[in-house]
Amino acid sequence: MAELKRTKIKALLGSEPGDQAVCAKGWVRTKRGNKNVNFINLNDGSTIHNLQVVADPAVFGEDVMKKVTTGASLSVIGKLAASQGGGQTVELIAESIEILGESDVEKYPLQPKRHSLEFLREIAHLRPRTNTFSAIYRIRHAMIFAVHNFFNERGFLNVHTPLVTASDGEGAGETFRVSTLDPANPPKNEDGEVDFKQDFFGREVNLTVTGQLEGELAAMAMGDVYTFGPTFRAENSNTTRHLAEFWMIEPEMAFYDLDDNMDLAEDLLKYLVGYALEHCADDLEFLAKRAADEEKSKPANQRQELGLIERLRFVIDNDFERLTYTEAIEILKNSKPNKKKKFQFLIEEWGADLQSEHERFLVEKHFKKPVILTDYPKAIKAFYMRQNDDDKTVRAMDILFPGIGEVVGGSQREERLELLVERMSEVGISEEEMWWYLDTRRFGSAPHSGFGLGFERILLFITGMTNIRDVIPFPRTPGSAEF
Amino acid sequence: MAELKRTKIKALLGSEPGDQAVCAKGWVRTKRGNKNVNFINLNDGSTIHNLQVVADPAVFGEDVMKKVTTGASLSVIGKLAASQGGGQTVELIAESIEILGESDVEKYPLQPKRHSLEFLREIAHLRPRTNTFSAIYRIRHAMIFAVHNFFNERGFLNVHTPLVTASDGEGAGETFRVSTLDPANPPKNEDGEVDFKQDFFGREVNLTVTGQLEGELAAMAMGDVYTFGPTFRAENSNTTRHLAEFWMIEPEMAFYDLDDNMDLAEDLLKYLVGYALEHCADDLEFLAKRAADEEKSKPANQRQELGLIERLRFVIDNDFERLTYTEAIEILKNSKPNKKKKFQFLIEEWGADLQSEHERFLVEKHFKKPVILTDYPKAIKAFYMRQNDDDKTVRAMDILFPGIGEVVGGSQREERLELLVERMSEVGISEEEMWWYLDTRRFGSAPHSGFGLGFERILLFITGMTNIRDVIPFPRTPGSAEF
Repeated sequence: MAELKRTKIKALLGSEPGDQAVCAKGWVRTKRGNKNVNFINLNDGSTIHNLQVVADPAVFGEDVMKKVTTGASLSVIGKLAASQGGGQTVELIAESIEILGESDVEKYPLQPKRHSLEFLREIAHLRPRTNTFSAIYRIRHAMIFAVHNFFNERGFLNVHTPLVTASDGEGAGETFRVSTLDPANPPKNEDGEVDFKQDFFGREVNLTVTGQLEGELAAMAMGDVYTFGPTFRAENSNTTRHLAEFWMIEPEMAFYDLDDNMDLAEDLLKYLVGYALEHCADDLEFLAKRAADEEKSKPANQRQELGLIERLRFVIDNDFERLTYTEAIEILKNSKPNKKKKFQFLIEEWGADLQSEHERFLVEKHFKKPVILTDYPKAIKAFYMRQNDDDKTVRAMDILFPGIGEVVGGSQREERLELLVERMSEVGISEEEMWWYLDTRRFGSAPHSGFGLGFERILLFITGMTNIRDVIPFPRTPGSAEF
Repeated sequence: MAELKRTKIKALLGSEPGDQAVCAKGWVRTKRGNKNVNFINLNDGSTIHNLQVVADPAVFGEDVMKKVTTGASLSVIGKLAASQGGGQTVELIAESIEILGESDVEKYPLQPKRHSLEFLREIAHLRPRTNTFSAIYRIRHAMIFAVHNFFNERGFLNVHTPLVTASDGEGAGETFRVSTLDPANPPKNEDGEVDFKQDFFGREVNLTVTGQLEGELAAMAMGDVYTFGPTFRAENSNTTRHLAEFWMIEPEMAFYDLDDNMDLAEDLLKYLVGYALEHCADDLEFLAKRAADEEKSKPANQRQELGLIERLRFVIDNDFERLTYTEAIEILKNSKPNKKKKFQFLIEEWGADLQSEHERFLVEKHFKKPVILTDYPKAIKAFYMRQNDDDKTVRAMDILFPGIGEVVGGSQREERLELLVERMSEVGISEEEMWWYLDTRRFGSAPHSGFGLGFERILLFITGMTNIRDVIPFPRTPGSAEF
């Protein structure tokens, strides 16, 4: 007889009771009961819900039942019956139980109680076995798929831009060097400098900080493209919003102006939030409850007005507020916290870079919705942004979200060769090294635009988590590259 | 009046002639004609087909028409008319032409003639403007989407495993070091060694060679997962089959044995090929013609029996041949090229590592179809593969494809803690450093399996290209990290 094929718990929980034997495999979350009956909660990661396995200890014997501990892996065969308890419609009446892998209760770090997020970060290899992290990772997957689906439906092409690169895309930003030279005794040239000509790639290279520049090359041939890959910043910032290795989505579109760009970004964000609400309802419900519990521990005046699900619905149901940097500065200058000197950085004049406190004021207090700021001073933005006729501002846009600040940064790109070269020279970027980038403006240049969406930033918003290290499986931060 | 919205050329070519004005934007591929009429072939990357724009030079004047050169970017407004020429059903009768970006014919490297692939590699930033590369990149996108679609439909979760890691997943393989230390004067410890404690991550780290180990961590909690990301090998191999940076798809499944693993891999490969045939027909037709032309330049006895499309159909229509390494060795030992000493490496005894020539013999001459080899000698396979009872072989599988060799390598994983630890000690892998990996076997271990699919390898097969540098937008190879 052929072995009975395993059915995933998500499918079993959606089945009717029946006389057909089924097989479930998964990990024990909890076991409770008495000498007459045991209830084993089994989870296999396919859903946040456990399958309740009902087992008669007398049938399976003490030798087996004592191995059914939290974390153990089981294969259970039995029949689905209507559940007596609340919370599930069917339960599995066990006819055979095989212990696939034991889990020593004395040593297993995950016990059926609430562990702190800090502790779980230290055991990131085991945290997907918790409800919170399995929910987050299922949502992360759904959002990855939704990103590809959104762009594919619209005829965009995903372009794999290189990770190892000799270019420093932002003209700023600390990078990680990639090398195979002997670190203790690197070869030196005549001037006593490290001779990167002898390195693997024949030159000094680093991990990319953005796929944008290569994305532009593709857009100026294929039209609408996007990248979705890891990017790296070697900034020593130990905050709840920064990672050294994080994933970015960077669409780049030929023939788009800034308005088209904003429309696309707003559509994408709404699509992602809507997709999560539609496809991840169970996991969001769990995380919403979790977030609500967290809120209760805060002083009343620091609590969020809306719950997680309400915040998500709010984003879908409302247009983002669009205004220029200049308009924002006026609002901030005349705001209560500025006049009462409550801002750490007071807004005194046009040209100031906006700090997180200013962005939060605009989004959370003033407009109470996502905000798109445009036309920033060129001095505080990257060299490739299209210059406005006022000679002061560039066609930049940042999208600010409640609770997390900037999720999207983008711009219309400077497509005019002379203006681009001039700006590069002003900020000290080598024309020779960027010959390939400039070629797109030399040959068949066209208006084009793009933006970057920080994938973990939008995941923070959607999951209601508050530390970016909790929405990526294995966070990379200063001093930490475990697993 | 609102500006007329641009329509992509793919959509225009699928439209009926009409009196409504439409707007096309794109790049000039060619212009021909006489003083009465000009035919401009316009391409915007949405399809391999060009839109034929019909322009009366007298209407637009010499000043405009002389700027309509290969590579220039245009915005054209006009009406669609039934095409007089062959090859397309509609053409665009131009009413206005705006030059968005000129292209100096003297300097533009891409002229309307066949350029060599070698030359195009040197201008990888412009090659997506050619038919061959735009076709390849559209197929590459379709395959990315198909991968995600295949797994999403089956309830797999995409897991982003880390790129920067302290672990060397294969227990072999040259890696790239990632560091922010001063390369010329790195800090040293008391023993005179480079003090990586002072490096960004507080330890020596490298770029990952595989996401498998972290994938296993996720699988042992979430069930079915897959990675799809860049991996890196610092091997100094300048071949048509190797890249220093390439993309891998690595599914990892709890409760799968090797048969389940092989079934999944075969399903995935057939799905990808089928998806390409269904969704990329135009581009495949172009590449098939291209491949057929290439074949003609080869001696008759080196030509492939089947054309590109036939090769793809063949993969879908036939089961892959499954046999053990031991059976393969017998076939090879008794094969003509072995007996006549035509193999460079003669097969003399069991245990020999198979070379490309042996794999090709099995696939292309003996079975004439994709082959899955299983149960390799443990000495030539990685430490994590499940040991068979014969104490000689492991539950490995490699999938070999005609023309390209290995596309998939996988195995059932060793889930038994003692056997895994023993094998690690034999091959010199530190138990302490891999504590997190071993934890999956300490707590709730379970049978599980997985494999790695080299994305560029399967793209070679699907596109009919023969150099791996031509199926990734910006190849990274020894001595080369341009763009």
